[in-house]
Amino acid sequence: MTATKGLEGIVATTSSISSIIDGVLTYRGYNIDDLAEYATFEEVVYLLWFGNLPNQDKLSELRERLDEYAAIPSAVIDQMKLYPSNANTMAVLRSAISALALYDVTANDMSREANVDKAIKLQAQLPTIIAAFARIREGKEPISPKAGHSIAYNFLYMLNGEEPENSAVVAMDKALVLHADHELNASTFAARVTVATLSDMYSGVVSAVGALKGPLHGGANEAVMQMLEEIGSLNRVEDYIQHKLDDKEKIMGFGHRVYKNGDPRAKHLQKMSRELGNMNGNLELYEMSTRIEELVTGQKGLKPNVDFYSASVYTMLGIPRDLFTPIFAISRVSGWTAHILEQYENNRIIRPRAEYTGPLSQLFIPIQER
Amino acid sequence: MTATKGLEGIVATTSSISSIIDGVLTYRGYNIDDLAEYATFEEVVYLLWFGNLPNQDKLSELRERLDEYAAIPSAVIDQMKLYPSNANTMAVLRSAISALALYDVTANDMSREANVDKAIKLQAQLPTIIAAFARIREGKEPISPKAGHSIAYNFLYMLNGEEPENSAVVAMDKALVLHADHELNASTFAARVTVATLSDMYSGVVSAVGALKGPLHGGANEAVMQMLEEIGSLNRVEDYIQHKLDDKEKIMGFGHRVYKNGDPRAKHLQKMSRELGNMNGNLELYEMSTRIEELVTGQKGLKPNVDFYSASVYTMLGIPRDLFTPIFAISRVSGWTAHILEQYENNRIIRPRAEYTGPLSQLFIPIQER
Repeated sequence: MTATKGLEGIVATTSSISSIIDGVLTYRGYNIDDLAEYATFEEVVYLLWFGNLPNQDKLSELRERLDEYAAIPSAVIDQMKLYPSNANTMAVLRSAISALALYDVTANDMSREANVDKAIKLQAQLPTIIAAFARIREGKEPISPKAGHSIAYNFLYMLNGEEPENSAVVAMDKALVLHADHELNASTFAARVTVATLSDMYSGVVSAVGALKGPLHGGANEAVMQMLEEIGSLNRVEDYIQHKLDDKEKIMGFGHRVYKNGDPRAKHLQKMSRELGNMNGNLELYEMSTRIEELVTGQKGLKPNVDFYSASVYTMLGIPRDLFTPIFAISRVSGWTAHILEQYENNRIIRPRAEYTGPLSQLFIPIQER
Repeated sequence: MTATKGLEGIVATTSSISSIIDGVLTYRGYNIDDLAEYATFEEVVYLLWFGNLPNQDKLSELRERLDEYAAIPSAVIDQMKLYPSNANTMAVLRSAISALALYDVTANDMSREANVDKAIKLQAQLPTIIAAFARIREGKEPISPKAGHSIAYNFLYMLNGEEPENSAVVAMDKALVLHADHELNASTFAARVTVATLSDMYSGVVSAVGALKGPLHGGANEAVMQMLEEIGSLNRVEDYIQHKLDDKEKIMGFGHRVYKNGDPRAKHLQKMSRELGNMNGNLELYEMSTRIEELVTGQKGLKPNVDFYSASVYTMLGIPRDLFTPIFAISRVSGWTAHILEQYENNRIIRPRAEYTGPLSQLFIPIQER
């Protein structure tokens, strides 16, 4: 028995939700390029959960149910008001989702129907939690979600307390589409390992949020923005990056274990970054990003991943840096819940082995003689 | 690429914390039989974290730090008072641990020193959370932990509000020793997957609690007790069990993926069950359990696992059934945190692959035409 570190290349499950084959990402067999171009996030959510794209009736029905569930219990808002205002936003999200389960009488109902219902609840409530905390920590009252609007619209509306611009809604929606699922990424795998004990969907999503919180996963887009802030201006990019490259330091937002020839999501975010820059009349973040890409790709051969251009996109949408990873969760919860539903359909507890490398046959010596 | 369902037989990591070799369980190379007989839970906690058994000075130092951290922030108590009194106890534990992180300014400090410190905090605070909620849900005030006593003593003291009998403390302590670690069990693996993104220790433990909550893992001892309650008396055992065996129904508390010839922890719990029965002057639960064992082992060859006799032990200690799995967590958090510390020492993100079994090359059709 030899350990496969990080389970690289090990196939842990079958799945029909998303595929990454020869560098092409699909959700349920639909190329991510088509979905990013033509589908709304709600259509993608339906696709991930049910396996096919909805017709107008099915989509309307899903959107009504999302509207119905979007408000969160007042007891959870009350708890969030007890959270320190400087709390880590992903720890807040993890805690509030865990608390949501306490108020859901169907939390431990393992029927398919109840679990689909919980998926809808979680998809509807994550944006509300994040927007609520973003306001509570500034001493403002949370804003209730508005029925009849998309998740992208509602998130921006609840965050800022005003009607979002259509261009901002379109960009947010596309970012949600692009982050929705990604095969057995670390947070999705954490969710599946957790629910494979037949634990409940909230437990699975809480685990996923915890995994996404790590800087090697969801934290990467925040790290990219931190780098852009440290650099500060276009004319400082070369010095900063060259120094890092010379010191063989890791540059965040580049490379991906499963894409050797580039992440197919990156180009869509790059385009959005350029468009938002043009719209805002300020292309500096975009130009800094492309210059970094030239240097890193040119010298190391590593290509930008999904996190790299999302940093400038979110910033140009006026979103604070510590909400980037929570926004990733707003999107990815669609994939997490799809994977949890799939795990339940054909479950087996996920319990690998460890290769023991410690001593054996240790003789117990009483404490007085140690 | 073919999927290995449940990762059975796949070696996911090296580890020097516990070993299961030829049916023998060791912690750091010490046979579980010796530890169950001679070591206290605090010595075992030290052993799991630091790799060797403590001398008296080291043990005293650890116990002082556990005492120091055992109280939980009043804001977390306040949140728990907002929880519904009928909330699932594992969902409560998951939520309260997640909330603890919000009040720990070192939560995201990834130094070894800060992480060891968090392990001590979590070990100290889990019993306090569980005892506090057990009282809050009955409308009682939580009781503060008492310095200078063991974790086993303090848990029973905080739960019942009175000094526990020495025999109860000894039994609880031994149960904690027996559940402390178990190689890459599902909850420990969930913790390692979560923190392998370099997420924080609280996130890892929250994931583990979520996984332990499932009936295929920690929930099993509750299911055993439920069965014993359903049976109701010794003279009904044979009918009940034979009926289940004839119907090929699963009987909880028997068999284990990694022990084909019996779980080495079971005999210690069986002995404890008999001793507590003798002490309480009521051997019925013990005798029911041994009769079930005779029937199941006799006819199916399956042997009792750690969960089987722990059900009668906890019940004879006066503990409500829905605290059995939380008590498992009080013990296993020592192993979870040891594994998290080990994961950080030599980290790689845990990201396996899925074998895609869905359709490919789906043509995107606009919603109007679906």
